[in-house]
Amino acid sequence: MTTRVAVIGATGKMGRLVSSLIEDTDGYELVARLDSKSALSEMLGADVAVDLTAPGVSQRVVEFAVDHGIRVLVGTSGWSQERIDSLAFRLAGLDDAGVVIIPNFSIGSVLGSAFAAQAARFFDSIEIVEAHQAGKVDSPSGTAVRTAELIGRARAGLGPVSAPHTDQRARGQQVSSVPVHSLRLDGLLARQDVFLGGPGETLTISHNTLSAEAYERGILLALAATRTARGVTVGLDRIVDLGLGEAGAGSPRAAGSAATSGAAE
Amino acid sequence: MTTRVAVIGATGKMGRLVSSLIEDTDGYELVARLDSKSALSEMLGADVAVDLTAPGVSQRVVEFAVDHGIRVLVGTSGWSQERIDSLAFRLAGLDDAGVVIIPNFSIGSVLGSAFAAQAARFFDSIEIVEAHQAGKVDSPSGTAVRTAELIGRARAGLGPVSAPHTDQRARGQQVSSVPVHSLRLDGLLARQDVFLGGPGETLTISHNTLSAEAYERGILLALAATRTARGVTVGLDRIVDLGLGEAGAGSPRAAGSAATSGAAE
Amino acid sequence: MTTRVAVIGATGKMGRLVSSLIEDTDGYELVARLDSKSALSEMLGADVAVDLTAPGVSQRVVEFAVDHGIRVLVGTSGWSQERIDSLAFRLAGLDDAGVVIIPNFSIGSVLGSAFAAQAARFFDSIEIVEAHQAGKVDSPSGTAVRTAELIGRARAGLGPVSAPHTDQRARGQQVSSVPVHSLRLDGLLARQDVFLGGPGETLTISHNTLSAEAYERGILLALAATRTARGVTVGLDRIVDLGLGEAGAGSPRAAGSAATSGAAE
Amino acid sequence: MTTRVAVIGATGKMGRLVSSLIEDTDGYELVARLDSKSALSEMLGADVAVDLTAPGVSQRVVEFAVDHGIRVLVGTSGWSQERIDSLAFRLAGLDDAGVVIIPNFSIGSVLGSAFAAQAARFFDSIEIVEAHQAGKVDSPSGTAVRTAELIGRARAGLGPVSAPHTDQRARGQQVSSVPVHSLRLDGLLARQDVFLGGPGETLTISHNTLSAEAYERGILLALAATRTARGVTVGLDRIVDLGLGEAGAGSPRAAGSAATSGAAE
Repeated sequence: MTTRVAVIGATGKMGRLVSSLIEDTDGYELVARLDSKSALSEMLGADVAVDLTAPGVSQRVVEFAVDHGIRVLVGTSGWSQERIDSLAFRLAGLDDAGVVIIPNFSIGSVLGSAFAAQAARFFDSIEIVEAHQAGKVDSPSGTAVRTAELIGRARAGLGPVSAPHTDQRARGQQVSSVPVHSLRLDGLLARQDVFLGGPGETLTISHNTLSAEAYERGILLALAATRTARGVTVGLDRIVDLGLGEAGAGSPRAAGSAATSGAAE
Repeated sequence: MTTRVAVIGATGKMGRLVSSLIEDTDGYELVARLDSKSALSEMLGADVAVDLTAPGVSQRVVEFAVDHGIRVLVGTSGWSQERIDSLAFRLAGLDDAGVVIIPNFSIGSVLGSAFAAQAARFFDSIEIVEAHQAGKVDSPSGTAVRTAELIGRARAGLGPVSAPHTDQRARGQQVSSVPVHSLRLDGLLARQDVFLGGPGETLTISHNTLSAEAYERGILLALAATRTARGVTVGLDRIVDLGLGEAGAGSPRAAGSAATSGAAE
Repeated sequence: MTTRVAVIGATGKMGRLVSSLIEDTDGYELVARLDSKSALSEMLGADVAVDLTAPGVSQRVVEFAVDHGIRVLVGTSGWSQERIDSLAFRLAGLDDAGVVIIPNFSIGSVLGSAFAAQAARFFDSIEIVEAHQAGKVDSPSGTAVRTAELIGRARAGLGPVSAPHTDQRARGQQVSSVPVHSLRLDGLLARQDVFLGGPGETLTISHNTLSAEAYERGILLALAATRTARGVTVGLDRIVDLGLGEAGAGSPRAAGSAATSGAAE
Repeated sequence: MTTRVAVIGATGKMGRLVSSLIEDTDGYELVARLDSKSALSEMLGADVAVDLTAPGVSQRVVEFAVDHGIRVLVGTSGWSQERIDSLAFRLAGLDDAGVVIIPNFSIGSVLGSAFAAQAARFFDSIEIVEAHQAGKVDSPSGTAVRTAELIGRARAGLGPVSAPHTDQRARGQQVSSVPVHSLRLDGLLARQDVFLGGPGETLTISHNTLSAEAYERGILLALAATRTARGVTVGLDRIVDLGLGEAGAGSPRAAGSAATSGAAE
């Protein structure tokens, strides 16, 4: 059976990528492409809505879709835990509603962040260097922030990382006590290095994105999961078994039933 | 209570490191330092023998210690699975015998190899580049070989990695289908990069050793575990909980009761 | 005045890139696109022929163009010094003939190779690791071979680099005594790291190509230079002042007037 | 003939390194080791004074030595161009006075900074990431500052590098318009990466220090040059021919006679 998909935010970079991927993949039909001038009602008739809008708009998109029995795959970052909890509460008891939120579609990136968190218990020095193309306006990147938060969570019992002299300008911005350094350069797309240092050794986890192809596997896995999702599911690691334990899991809330299936249980 | 330790192979680099670490650590007493001219009987009286000899000698050292009720920490690589199995068989049923074999005392290195194995299911292109000081005579390094074997095991159901044109000289040496490249350079001690490539992205796990301090944490953890070990235990990940699932576990035999508890069955 | 350009090998990747670049650049007109089924005479009428064919064909293309008063920009690697010398001899005395041979259009790559050569006098340990997309069939890459040759030339008075145990399979392929290691991976396009090691320190020169955009600047510089070239000119560093001394110059023959001006003698 | 050397600041890390190097090298005799409690007169009788004190003290040391006909090798960074000019003025006309100032004794580091400056004309995106052991209190490192200044000078005609959004905390500290990011980590000694990005490509120059051995070559070269120095000489590149043109030269003032020989000419 073919899954009918509406893409919201279809004219952005990710929107175009997802649209053409849906067109090229058997089992999916692209039934609507909404941009900032479209009425939300244009998504009616779809089985799945893929929301690739900005954080400010995303909530309205999701609410409209849920109200009309359309499952949603959210591919924008920026959903806070509070908002996720509230959505999960709302979906509780609804049998045919499901929202899948994927802050990062790259399997390599999710693995990299998870490994960094997993190793964080064994190294007191941890810093993140992320580099993106010159055009990226915000810093640090959402992935770097999430990685730092996962590291902070993994070290909950150990306290902050050992990051001296962070009042100095060159020492970056601290997120969950982890200094994060942001480079903006021509000639690369997206890269993240997590440096973990202990006595006599360093361990470095580096992820480098060459092209948007890196997201395709994750998008297809997420689309398939959204088709039958119930409640709220957050993170690629909740959809594909990455072999990660709870400590290293890459979703905003690593444990906790609300994050995975809403109040449905 | 103080643990009395004999170091065999005490004049080598690791031997000197372990000896001085024992002397500096409360709860341990260095009672004998054996070199290639010593009689094995010089270790008598110790609670724990630390074997840092060459693979050819190591087996005799272990047998002598086990025969005389001394527990053993083996810090030399080169014990094959066959030899480990045979030792585990021999120790079965002995209540007060235990051997701990640690091919690599660096926590960062063990984590790095484990992460590489864990990610190996998601990337078809995998290659290892290891670099050691110019004086290292063998290649590839033992750690690189073990990492490649762990990768091979993690991909058991997926088949070999995609490594084209490996008949060409510059394409390295294949271990468990993974091309391994060995650099020998002044100015560094030990470094290993595992490159994992998939559509549009690479994930790189790098471990870099600055000094022998990198081994101290692992040595102390292993010494403490050896004091009360029974059967044969292989790998740092069997002694400290690194948060690794079975897939990524760093020991030569990731699963299998003989490797972990020997006589316990 | 508009320069009329014919592209030979127009259907390959570089051919398509150069063709569309010419179409998009003021002052150039694309008058012919030849592929493997075209007659060479189709380039007649052009001011400049850009040869992007394979090494086997390139010589015939260049001879035809020179015979018909068309200047040539050769963008294929694989011209040996013997062939270059022979071409320079042939062009001597011809006022309106000029051939520009650019083995590598990337300024960053040419700078990287030149820096490696310049530093090579101060480090006895030197090894090259190049990585290209999985589809690249030959190894080592042409750029790695040229870099190793430049290093060999820079060390002419010092002897070979210190590369122990190169008989072992994992130790790569030696070019001008420099071990070269070739990785073939999905998720990257082209990367080269030159590692230089001395007592207590390493210097690493890394070049990474994200997209074919990296070649555009070099192509335009080379096209402009070809318009008025006389004799044979080899290498981007002969066209743009990269600030390199003779020692570090990136062309196949770093010094020697024949390489730069041919007919001038 | 033996050169008699006094080391000032002999109890610091560099002081101990230089002292033992002098003791181990033929042709040199260590005649005095001064620390913070010594009288400067203790250096009398030496041919060469090696000043390894802090910037605040260094000026007095140099003045005392020059007043007493002792040549000086300054191994502390932190001499401003103003102070250097003033010293050069003072030494003008003195036949038997010479001061050699070496902000960095590592040949690899000097080469790395020079290459970065040389390439800086060809890349609009440039950022520096330096990492040092956790104990280093200041940031950015002196070498990073000098490298950024050299880059700024090399781009004098081109204007600042393209560094967007540097008001954001994670975007580092700008030096000569170049964002500099400082990491402080256990497990490494000193590392500097200069990232240069242009359309479709990046060039990265990385220097990594394993141990203080990295400084020994530079110290011996500088000592030999100091023996017969006249005026003020600044930078290792003024003592050993690194093959660098003026553009890439590593000294604080790349050109200008005052920097190399005082006003003596």
